[in-house]
Amino acid sequence: MSDRIFTAALLIIGDEILSGRTQDANLAYLAKWLGVQGIRLKEVRVVSDDMNAIGAAVNALRAAHDYLFTTGGIGPTHDDITVDAIAAALGVPVIVHPDARAILAAHYGDQLTDARLRMARTPQGADLIENPRTKAPGIRVGNVFIMAGVPMITQGMLAALDGKLEGGAPVLSRTVAAWTQESRAAATLAAVEKANPGAQIGSYPFWREGRTGANFVIRSVDPAQLEVVAGALLSALTDLGLDPVDGEL
Amino acid sequence: MSDRIFTAALLIIGDEILSGRTQDANLAYLAKWLGVQGIRLKEVRVVSDDMNAIGAAVNALRAAHDYLFTTGGIGPTHDDITVDAIAAALGVPVIVHPDARAILAAHYGDQLTDARLRMARTPQGADLIENPRTKAPGIRVGNVFIMAGVPMITQGMLAALDGKLEGGAPVLSRTVAAWTQESRAAATLAAVEKANPGAQIGSYPFWREGRTGANFVIRSVDPAQLEVVAGALLSALTDLGLDPVDGEL
Repeated sequence: MSDRIFTAALLIIGDEILSGRTQDANLAYLAKWLGVQGIRLKEVRVVSDDMNAIGAAVNALRAAHDYLFTTGGIGPTHDDITVDAIAAALGVPVIVHPDARAILAAHYGDQLTDARLRMARTPQGADLIENPRTKAPGIRVGNVFIMAGVPMITQGMLAALDGKLEGGAPVLSRTVAAWTQESRAAATLAAVEKANPGAQIGSYPFWREGRTGANFVIRSVDPAQLEVVAGALLSALTDLGLDPVDGEL
Repeated sequence: MSDRIFTAALLIIGDEILSGRTQDANLAYLAKWLGVQGIRLKEVRVVSDDMNAIGAAVNALRAAHDYLFTTGGIGPTHDDITVDAIAAALGVPVIVHPDARAILAAHYGDQLTDARLRMARTPQGADLIENPRTKAPGIRVGNVFIMAGVPMITQGMLAALDGKLEGGAPVLSRTVAAWTQESRAAATLAAVEKANPGAQIGSYPFWREGRTGANFVIRSVDPAQLEVVAGALLSALTDLGLDPVDGEL
């Protein structure tokens, strides 16, 4: 396996997310899906339904990462401008993709209205991503993957991409936890991380049932290192009298 | 009331969001809170716990918007680097803020360890934001508001800022809906929006209980316009035979 690290960005497009009306559900799902493919999600942006905002973000993110995924704005209505904005950002025209038109024609029959035909429009030079749920396809153009906003549809499109993107070694994680204020473990966490280059330890506090606790998440591409670090952390937290558990709280 | 539009950005800092381990809950809450203050959330970014990534995003977003909020990375552990990254981005040193030290000293007494004292560090020139829940304060420096990552704490800090930030006219919204494929309403939505400059109509489809529906969200700063557009849309959708409802489905 190559040591190369593959990174991805996600661009979430939509006023409904920025208004707080809709809670995004694609970020966490995509992050985990990418993890399985050995690709690291490194940056996410959310922008409004605005040609310039979408275009600027697309050009910044596709240049900085191996893969860029977008969600939202590819439906049949006037506020669905993602395809136009990405084509403009890439400097290519929008075409009606013949395969997409055929898919929609087969699905809608003589109900293929102009509005529905909007969903066959792609930037020139694009390939399609299968949409097993509602047929209107996702779009791949260069390293940009244009996905739906509705999570069920996006998840179907990602399933169609399973195993098709080149990745590197997946980042593995393992959690150790304790009912403690994280500040009591702070020096120990830093020391154990420093002693194990290549591993990261994140500390995530919580308050539940009137008690304070923290999950300490160890991340590494090396499963053997994960075990070593978990053992070292459990031992050090036990020495502090924090009564750690091997796993998540 | 001034016609000026006030905009804000949110920078979410944390590997735990990008790994998909934790679902962000601050975006939607902040968006709605800002809406009440008459401030529009226009852009969100999520970056990892990385000095350069945080710094670049902070400088881009604070220049582009009236307000920048950050969440995450201000706790007592080694992975909490937000204050350092923002100070570096602003070109100012990190200091131990005397008022923050006093707050923590009053709270922790003789348990004010080095780790906890990390939570009194701020960029030079900063003011504090009250944290009614767990005491360790948020930080305001220029137009940058540095908040906690844990939603309960962030919400407390936002409550402490209620009514203290200058805003413009809030964006109001009103929803009309129908059990229909949104494509059937597409031409109508576009026509009604075009006939009412200043109002936006977003179309948000869903699938529930085996049926297809869509919410059409009208947005405007003018409550009278909102009523006019809602009436026009209900009438036009009725003419289409879509049996719309006045409200959200």
